[in-house]
Formats: sequence, C-alpha cells, structure tokens
Amino acid sequence: MAELIDGKQLAKKINEQTKASVTVLKARGIAPKLVVIIVGDDEASEIYVRNKHRKAVQIGIISETKRLPENTTQAEILSLIDQYNQDETVHGIMVQSPLPEQIDEAAITRAILPAKDVDGFNPENVGKLYSDSDQNYPVSCTPKGIMTMLKAYQVKLAGANAVIVGRSNIVGRPMAALLLNASATVTVVHSHTKDMSAYTRDADILVVATGIANLIKGDAIKPGATVIDVGMNRDANGHLTGDVDFDSVQPVAGKITPVPGGVGPMTIATLMQQTVELAKWSE
Amino acid sequence: MAELIDGKQLAKKINEQTKASVTVLKARGIAPKLVVIIVGDDEASEIYVRNKHRKAVQIGIISETKRLPENTTQAEILSLIDQYNQDETVHGIMVQSPLPEQIDEAAITRAILPAKDVDGFNPENVGKLYSDSDQNYPVSCTPKGIMTMLKAYQVKLAGANAVIVGRSNIVGRPMAALLLNASATVTVVHSHTKDMSAYTRDADILVVATGIANLIKGDAIKPGATVIDVGMNRDANGHLTGDVDFDSVQPVAGKITPVPGGVGPMTIATLMQQTVELAKWSE
Repeated sequence: MAELIDGKQLAKKINEQTKASVTVLKARGIAPKLVVIIVGDDEASEIYVRNKHRKAVQIGIISETKRLPENTTQAEILSLIDQYNQDETVHGIMVQSPLPEQIDEAAITRAILPAKDVDGFNPENVGKLYSDSDQNYPVSCTPKGIMTMLKAYQVKLAGANAVIVGRSNIVGRPMAALLLNASATVTVVHSHTKDMSAYTRDADILVVATGIANLIKGDAIKPGATVIDVGMNRDANGHLTGDVDFDSVQPVAGKITPVPGGVGPMTIATLMQQTVELAKWSE
Repeated sequence: MAELIDGKQLAKKINEQTKASVTVLKARGIAPKLVVIIVGDDEASEIYVRNKHRKAVQIGIISETKRLPENTTQAEILSLIDQYNQDETVHGIMVQSPLPEQIDEAAITRAILPAKDVDGFNPENVGKLYSDSDQNYPVSCTPKGIMTMLKAYQVKLAGANAVIVGRSNIVGRPMAALLLNASATVTVVHSHTKDMSAYTRDADILVVATGIANLIKGDAIKPGATVIDVGMNRDANGHLTGDVDFDSVQPVAGKITPVPGGVGPMTIATLMQQTVELAKWSE
C-alpha cells in the first residue's frame, strides 16, 4: 500500500515558510505584491483567482485582482501589463487562463517582464529552465511544486527513470526539464505514443498530466514507483478525480498523491513562494 | 545492412537551396551577413571558423570573422556584440566556443539579440523551441540539421520511439525538444542513467551525442533503427571516429550516419541556411 504524499500538509508548511519570508522582506522595506489579471467571466477561473487572492492575503502578500470584461482587446491587456511591468511595487504578474479567443495568449506571455513572470511562461524563463541556467528565474508552478514534493518525500531523482505522461507547456515539458536538470533519465509520452504502458511500467517516478480521468491503472505501474497525479477531472456526480486510477494504483505504488489534496495545494503554495522569490530577487 | 545517410550530399543540396535564397534576397536589396567572433587561438576553433567563412563566401553570404586576443575582457566582447546587434547590415552573430575562462559564456549568449542569434542559444529562442512556438526563431544548428536529415530520409517521427544519448544544451536538449514537437516519444539518457542499453535497444530513432568514442555497439541497437552519430572523436592515430561503433551497428540498423560525412556537414549547412532565414525574417 503506497504512502500518501500529503500535498495539503506540505503546502501548509511551505505557506508558513513563505509567510516568514514576507515578514523578513517587509522589515527590509519590500512588500511582495502579486497582480492577477482575469478576463471575462469563466466560472472556474473566478474560483481559482479568488483562492489565490485569499491565500496571498493570508500569507501577507499584497494581492491585486484586475478584472477585465470579456470583450477586452489585446492592446488593452498589453497596455495594462506594460503598466504593471513599470510599477516597481509589483513583483509578480499573471494572466489567468483561459483567455477569450480574440487574445493571443503567447503574445501576452511574452509581454510580461521575465523578472515579474510569476507563472514562468515567458520564453526567456523557459529557455533558462531548459538550459539549466545557474541564474535565478521563475518556473511553472505546478512542476516546481511537484519537485518540492519529491524532495520533501526524499524521492531519489539522480539516475531514476522518470516518465511524464503529457507534453503541455504548463506541466509536461517543464516537468521534463526539471527532472532532467536533477539528473533523472526522462521520457515524455503523449497521445502519439504507441503502447504507453510499456513506458509507464518501467517508471520509478511517474507524473501524469493528461486531463483524462483514471487513464493510468494499477497494471501500468512499477511496484514501488512514486506516482504524481496532476489531473483534476470532475465526474458526472461532480466528484473530483485524477488522471490516475487511485484504487488500483495505490496497492502497487510506493508513494502516491491523492486528488484532491496532492498537487493542487502545492501549485498555489508554489505561486505564493515564487511571488516572494521574485520580490527578493528584485532587490 | 543499414542505408547510409549521406550528410555530405544532403548538405550540398541544402547549400544550393541557400545560395538560391541569397540570390532572391539580394534582388530585394538584402545581403545576408554573418559575423563570427573568435577569442584566443584555439587551433580547432580556428579551423571551424575558417570552414564557416569559406562556406559562407561560396554561398554568397557576406562573412566577417572578428578575431580577438586571448586576454579580451567580457566587457569588450559585450560591447562588440552590442555594436553588431545595432548594425542593420548584420543578420547573424555567433561566438565560437570555447571561450577563455575570464568570459561568462552564458552572459555572452544572452547578449546576442534573439533575432540575430544564429546559434539559437539565447534563452528566448530556447524557450520558444521548448514551448513549440509558432513564431519564427533560430534553433541550435546541429539538431536542426539532424531534423533536416530525418525528413530527407523519410524517417517517420510521429509516434516513433526516439532516444537521445547526452543532455547538452547544444545537441541533446534541443534535439529532445525538436523530436517532441514532431510528436515522437522522447527519452533523454545520460551519464546518470542506469542500464543505458535497455533504452537504446528500444529506440526507433537513436541520436548519440556524448563525445565518447564508439560508446554505442551493435548489441545496443534495435534492428532497423535510424542511428544518428553526432560524435567527432579523434583516435590515437588522428583518425576521426563517432560515438557509435559503426562496424558493429551498421549490420543491425536500418539507416545510419557515417563519421565523417554525416552530421558534420549538415551542421555547417544549417548555419548558413539559418543565417539566410534570419535575414529573411528581418525584412
């Protein structure tokens, strides 16, 4: 029976550390500030944004949520970003996905100053991650939070066989880079992969980020493997379920994240942590 | 017996196409220009730089080689790069490796304007590659040249199991990104990997870039696989040899690059091709 990786508990600990860092920074005259821009009225986005705001306030981060109407133009968002880029009191800027179709998301990503890019999506930061730069730079929060979990649960990374299911820019690709930088052997499998379970069955560390509920079953798991489930799918009854079939995988795996209470809380804790890091690096 | 992937012949073809593009651009008033900066007097570097110059001239690219003494300071190189960044007649800038130890290579890489970064090493370009951006951007020439070879020899990429041996910023990592963008399943193995041949033996496409002569033998190859050898090692007799043990691998593989005459000529052809692309994109 796999040990549970308690993301909720670990996130709490990280948040306490972040709160302590905020206190230290404030004593030095720096008040970390996060700006979240939300466009339109997507219901799920509104919940995410409210959760971020609440968490920031709890931690002592100044949080500003900028709500824009659905018909906002690209130029208007770019101009707003430019304003926050120039505002020295702002340390982290993020634009909540999804954006209305008239907006070029890649252009928005490029517009945020790399030093304030709290999501780590700006190509300059992505490039530093993939080049394993020794500079300070922000990294996509979900995979960064997963690295924090793996370290906290003392999962051996160097030489481990890590398999990532999914190749998104937000999770799969940066996860691959982080694990490669940590000297794991890294394989990225995805929708074009033939016989996916041939790969997953050899994985010491398996990270699943596909958005397909219960895709990975127990027979696709190496006994003792560490299984990280990034999925957040709602079934017909409104019940939250991961990309990993928890019931069949838990008896086989060595460590496993639950859904909810695994990756989710770590992502938001990492966002807060990274806001404070950006503030620190801005000194 | 594997089919030979004739990099020399293909490079010749690419060079002819590039030459034709130069003629077209010149008729539009754009004369593609490449600047190569070389610091100190490393003998191998001097040969590479001379080869690049000769090839550029053959193709009709204006080629300037800037030679700087071994004791050049970082500030001097940065100031020179800045001058070329601002010079509208220059389309591609590269700094030959290795650099003297007083120079921070990463800082040099960041200083070259992304739009003139003919080596594709600037983090912004690296980030676009890893995010599979739909914009135009330069890519590290060796892996880009390998993609050209794979396409010319009609190697199926989508769904293929691609294994890359080596995780350098110049070859292994960008190669992984290019193959992932082309929908291959991608594994990166390296010095920390346990039982490397367990991975290579499953590879439909195997790219080897380790700098270890004859590392990969025939028993580590899947029958019919496409094997790309990036190695350029000189043995005790001054004989050039790859990272792949050609004699034992050729009977097993489906397609294989020789050393010399495989990846090498494609890298320089790609550098020329990319200089002209940068000139075109600058319009």
